[in-house]
Amino acid sequence: MPDITVLRLGHRPERDKRITTHVALTARAFGANRVVVSTKDPGLEESVRDVVKRFGGDFTISTGINWRRYLQEYPGMVVHLTMYGLPVDEVAPQVRDGEVLVVVGAEKVPPEVYQRADLNVAVGNQPHSEVAALAILLDRIFQGRALYKEFPGGRMRVLPCERGKNVVELSEQ
Amino acid sequence: MPDITVLRLGHRPERDKRITTHVALTARAFGANRVVVSTKDPGLEESVRDVVKRFGGDFTISTGINWRRYLQEYPGMVVHLTMYGLPVDEVAPQVRDGEVLVVVGAEKVPPEVYQRADLNVAVGNQPHSEVAALAILLDRIFQGRALYKEFPGGRMRVLPCERGKNVVELSEQ
Repeated sequence: MPDITVLRLGHRPERDKRITTHVALTARAFGANRVVVSTKDPGLEESVRDVVKRFGGDFTISTGINWRRYLQEYPGMVVHLTMYGLPVDEVAPQVRDGEVLVVVGAEKVPPEVYQRADLNVAVGNQPHSEVAALAILLDRIFQGRALYKEFPGGRMRVLPCERGKNVVELSEQ
Repeated sequence: MPDITVLRLGHRPERDKRITTHVALTARAFGANRVVVSTKDPGLEESVRDVVKRFGGDFTISTGINWRRYLQEYPGMVVHLTMYGLPVDEVAPQVRDGEVLVVVGAEKVPPEVYQRADLNVAVGNQPHSEVAALAILLDRIFQGRALYKEFPGGRMRVLPCERGKNVVELSEQ
């Protein structure tokens, strides 16, 4: 199983808070291990850690990282999500087990990211959403099994339900 | 092929503009035919129509619709995306050809939506993103072919590319 880090570039706390929260929670729900965000944003960290505390698993978030250095020194495969890249269904099978960095940009991504990436991957060549693109990429990397990951240790568990809500609150030990 | 309308509930123009734009563009890119949004938002309409004009296809957007009436009078199957629902991989095969309404809520969704829905569908039972959930649902409904939809008539076309950007600007007739 690959160990997946999502690197979020170009996050602007005022404008992008909700989108980056969606990126982080999608990363977690679809089997990534951690998210690192270029801009410092304690509020974002807190929202994501709160979900981990309530719903379990060991997903982590760091913000305010030097993304250029992180990218240059990253020891594993770098996969950059861009609408200009190669089709995800062709490229996802090339993602190997081991460490994988998935780069998710906001508006403009510097050319050096395209250069550094081992794979520039497009989830369709239409403009849509980095959140949707990340979900589909991780779904394909895990061959449709990303959604079946277990999240041990949370205080809450949602059980599938035909109509309404079925939430189990687990007692704290 | 189903004819898919996405109904976006609870959109607050200040807070949700970017998320709802992502919902609309994801709907378009993954094969839905139109989006209808409960709150009036001319700026949102304009952003989405601008993408359609540039990138093609016949996706439409309406905002400021009476969602209760729309939902009650909808003649086809109603599929409600919720983290409390039944697993998407079990339920998506039950989506038939014909008219399908996919309901995408924001924070709190009134109980009547769960009641009216023919299917309450969860894309995993973890909190993440309605944008990610919509992408995966449409991907499953179209059995992995949603991304291969053609969008005739646009002024721009992005061609897959290993590194960098390859955009063809088509001359206007």
